[in-house]
Amino acid sequence: MTDRLDRQLAFLTEADKLKSVYRATKVLDGHRKEDSGSHSWHIALYALILQEHANRDINIDRVIRMLLIHDLVEIDVGDSPIHGDHDIAAMEAAESAAADRLFGMLPEDQSRDLRALWEEFEAAESDDAVFAKSIDRVQPVIGNLETDGGTWPEYNVTREQLEDRVGWKVAKGAPAIWDHLKARIATWFAARS
Amino acid sequence: MTDRLDRQLAFLTEADKLKSVYRATKVLDGHRKEDSGSHSWHIALYALILQEHANRDINIDRVIRMLLIHDLVEIDVGDSPIHGDHDIAAMEAAESAAADRLFGMLPEDQSRDLRALWEEFEAAESDDAVFAKSIDRVQPVIGNLETDGGTWPEYNVTREQLEDRVGWKVAKGAPAIWDHLKARIATWFAARS
Ligand SMILES: [Ca+2]
Repeated sequence: MTDRLDRQLAFLTEADKLKSVYRATKVLDGHRKEDSGSHSWHIALYALILQEHANRDINIDRVIRMLLIHDLVEIDVGDSPIHGDHDIAAMEAAESAAADRLFGMLPEDQSRDLRALWEEFEAAESDDAVFAKSIDRVQPVIGNLETDGGTWPEYNVTREQLEDRVGWKVAKGAPAIWDHLKARIATWFAARS
Repeated sequence: MTDRLDRQLAFLTEADKLKSVYRATKVLDGHRKEDSGSHSWHIALYALILQEHANRDINIDRVIRMLLIHDLVEIDVGDSPIHGDHDIAAMEAAESAAADRLFGMLPEDQSRDLRALWEEFEAAESDDAVFAKSIDRVQPVIGNLETDGGTWPEYNVTREQLEDRVGWKVAKGAPAIWDHLKARIATWFAARS
């Protein structure tokens, strides 16, 4: 019991570092970059509020758990902006090692369960994971729309790239939300051209 | 549907402001104050990991939902450090008005459900709320212990005050965790006297 609690608290203390991992996007009032801790809270709330837009039979509580842990590996590997260039294989290997280290801090049963939940999210195949991935893509789009394009100009993002990199992922789990975003994206790009 | 989605997204955009509400405590590496968005994520994770230490029959998914929304009112009223002085009645009235405004942005069914969940948390009477409140008090204590007392010296906090203001709340929902913290707190104060 004491050993379990020690391991659990050591893991939770280590998790604090996610508050010091910064993303490409800013918080909406623009005063600082968004950290991955806040982001994880926000998309868990997104999932809770937007669950009715899932196009499949999801267990919202599993989705929320996935989203609470989905970015923990960034403590070791940092955030990879969706519009950057990456060596996918190297990134996956690094993330897997990070998952070994971080979830490995927990008691064995919890380590195994959370590692499996993280892998399910990464695989993006189960109904819960597909919806979780959709929601993870919605929040940054909203953020950019709410801040006059946000990071899009900086990364020279086109409307077509948003379709390719974000659109189908959102549409796969939450088509009604993508319809909504697509219309707002079209309006934003039309106003700039 | 579209009206529902509009209201949901407006609420989620407003919720972003919780990332700009700062607490008295710093993140553990000390580079900035902790924001209430990150805090909300962290304690939801605390609850998930520490659920076995609850001394009552909790529904962990309800607890997590409570913790995800418990601090939203701070968008309007700010954070009230536990070791500060406050006019309790005025603070409760302000928080209630904030809950009206924020949850009122949602479609009526969600507004009603989340408002009720927030009130259940605030009332601290149900098994789920008691455990959620316990967990909400654990994380700042760990934070202070991990940073050589953190905000305790600044607020001249005594060991007795920790018992009075924090101890019984943690013990009420998670006695084994309080036993653990109490021992570490005793060690910390003993080393300073
Ligand atoms: Ca709190």
